[in-house]
Amino acid sequence: MADFLSQGEHVVGVDIGGTKLMAVVFDHKFRPIGRNKRKSKSNKGEPTEERLTRTIQEALEEAKVDAVRGIGVGSPGPLDPKTGVIIDTPNLAWKDFPLAQYLKKQFKTPVVVDNDVNVGTYGEYRFGEISGCESVLGVFPGTGIGAGIIIEREIFYGFSGAAGEFGHMTLEVDGPYCGCGKRGCLEALASRVAIAAQVAALAARGDAPYILANCGTDLEKIRSTVLADAVKAGEKMVEGVIRKAAYYVGVATGNAINILSPEAVVLGGGLVEAMPDLYLEEVKRGIKEHAMPFLRRNVRIVTAKLADDAVVMGAAYMIAERLGEL
Amino acid sequence: MADFLSQGEHVVGVDIGGTKLMAVVFDHKFRPIGRNKRKSKSNKGEPTEERLTRTIQEALEEAKVDAVRGIGVGSPGPLDPKTGVIIDTPNLAWKDFPLAQYLKKQFKTPVVVDNDVNVGTYGEYRFGEISGCESVLGVFPGTGIGAGIIIEREIFYGFSGAAGEFGHMTLEVDGPYCGCGKRGCLEALASRVAIAAQVAALAARGDAPYILANCGTDLEKIRSTVLADAVKAGEKMVEGVIRKAAYYVGVATGNAINILSPEAVVLGGGLVEAMPDLYLEEVKRGIKEHAMPFLRRNVRIVTAKLADDAVVMGAAYMIAERLGEL
Repeated sequence: MADFLSQGEHVVGVDIGGTKLMAVVFDHKFRPIGRNKRKSKSNKGEPTEERLTRTIQEALEEAKVDAVRGIGVGSPGPLDPKTGVIIDTPNLAWKDFPLAQYLKKQFKTPVVVDNDVNVGTYGEYRFGEISGCESVLGVFPGTGIGAGIIIEREIFYGFSGAAGEFGHMTLEVDGPYCGCGKRGCLEALASRVAIAAQVAALAARGDAPYILANCGTDLEKIRSTVLADAVKAGEKMVEGVIRKAAYYVGVATGNAINILSPEAVVLGGGLVEAMPDLYLEEVKRGIKEHAMPFLRRNVRIVTAKLADDAVVMGAAYMIAERLGEL
Repeated sequence: MADFLSQGEHVVGVDIGGTKLMAVVFDHKFRPIGRNKRKSKSNKGEPTEERLTRTIQEALEEAKVDAVRGIGVGSPGPLDPKTGVIIDTPNLAWKDFPLAQYLKKQFKTPVVVDNDVNVGTYGEYRFGEISGCESVLGVFPGTGIGAGIIIEREIFYGFSGAAGEFGHMTLEVDGPYCGCGKRGCLEALASRVAIAAQVAALAARGDAPYILANCGTDLEKIRSTVLADAVKAGEKMVEGVIRKAAYYVGVATGNAINILSPEAVVLGGGLVEAMPDLYLEEVKRGIKEHAMPFLRRNVRIVTAKLADDAVVMGAAYMIAERLGEL
């Protein structure tokens, strides 16, 4: 671990999600010494940025820290990592919101903001078992399917700033509709929502009694942990749907390996956390069947180690290493 | 153009293809001053490396040049660009052949060897209309479908050294068999061979009389130029087959844009040269329908300008710019 911070110096890592806000205060060795968490949406109409300020403040209070050297933030996009402006996040009602500038003013400290998947990949990269690699593809299947790319030990942005739109790789021309408006995207075939839709149909037909008893046929209720429980309860059709989706993620990962030739792949997110063995097995099969032998040879394929802390840790590392420039 | 060479200094660019060998001598401004070309395979069993030596010698004789500062080579792979060893090229009967070392000994001059698609992309990049871009994806559909990637103005190799295996991107799980042994690869759907197979079936059924009259039903005879002529002769089904294949190349290019987010795409190779307008139209449609708007916005999509000279020019530039290191 590089020494960006001196003893007694602290940074904050922030994870802005569609459902929860989390802030964690880290000491100079990146050990968590205070944390706070709340739902992203207020019942009383409180703006997200004010809830975020309170979340950070309460984490600082728990840590008994008055001032920090900087704040790193992972947020849903699209956003501009150069300026820290959130371009559009319908879930949080931000549009062209200058988040970095806002937090800088609130806390009188440097702030970096980046895409949550980039930041999560970076956290797994810097603190996980693949930190020795030069290039990494991070794949996070969940409600959507995001990916982060590390090339030459740095996050890769590309010309648009948004490289790694992995979830919208077309795997089936004229396939099912995707939330992005096009058809046959990986997300339309393999996201948690795509799985839930197929599983809800099984439940409606009486083929997934565990799901029916626990979630009814409401897609929003068919979360990753319930899916894992249904597999454990022996619902073979549910398992088949999940395996096929994970296999598609493997096909897409194989395609990305063919293009990028990374040294390692790290898999995280809700579905992987809930069913790591089953998921990894199918992803590896997809990679084996679809990446070229010369390119997949010696590629390390691992599951994420930081769970819910990937984004806050990645964000904390990111601000710490950039303090010299800011 | 950077000044790697002084007046009176020369470099040679070499293009090793499955069907032809070509060597071109360039002056210090990268102007061609001598060239030679012959079939790759000898009728008399002459080894490829000896034919190659003769090709370079005769180009030097035409240029009236005795000594050169270096030789750059584009060759089919797999090969190791670091050592210049050709790992395996069944067409040319080379296996673990130390090509760079061999030519260095023959001509007493530094030699670099790289993958032909990388070198061709690099030629189009350095001498074409996109030389101001930071990142480029070069796509060359032909008998196979290759791609080269430029990131931060340099060829991108990835961990394996073989990044850009674009032709083996899976676009149809369980689709038609590919030469690589897997199924549903872009190459299996859209290469010249894939097109020829469909067109030969049309000819056999009497639905492509121009093709039948000119090529019979032999896939080897159904080359890009004949396909272009058939389209001009009004064979609508042949045109439909070609358009669909070009569209698939567009889908794959859209997927690659989603991952890499390049600043420009350059399209070359036999099919594009034979039918640039029709081909570009379908590729652009594929990109528009499958790349995310934010990532495809402002991406320049151009056709190759150097035709058969892309590899020799890229190879000449590559050796010239690396003379200081060798």
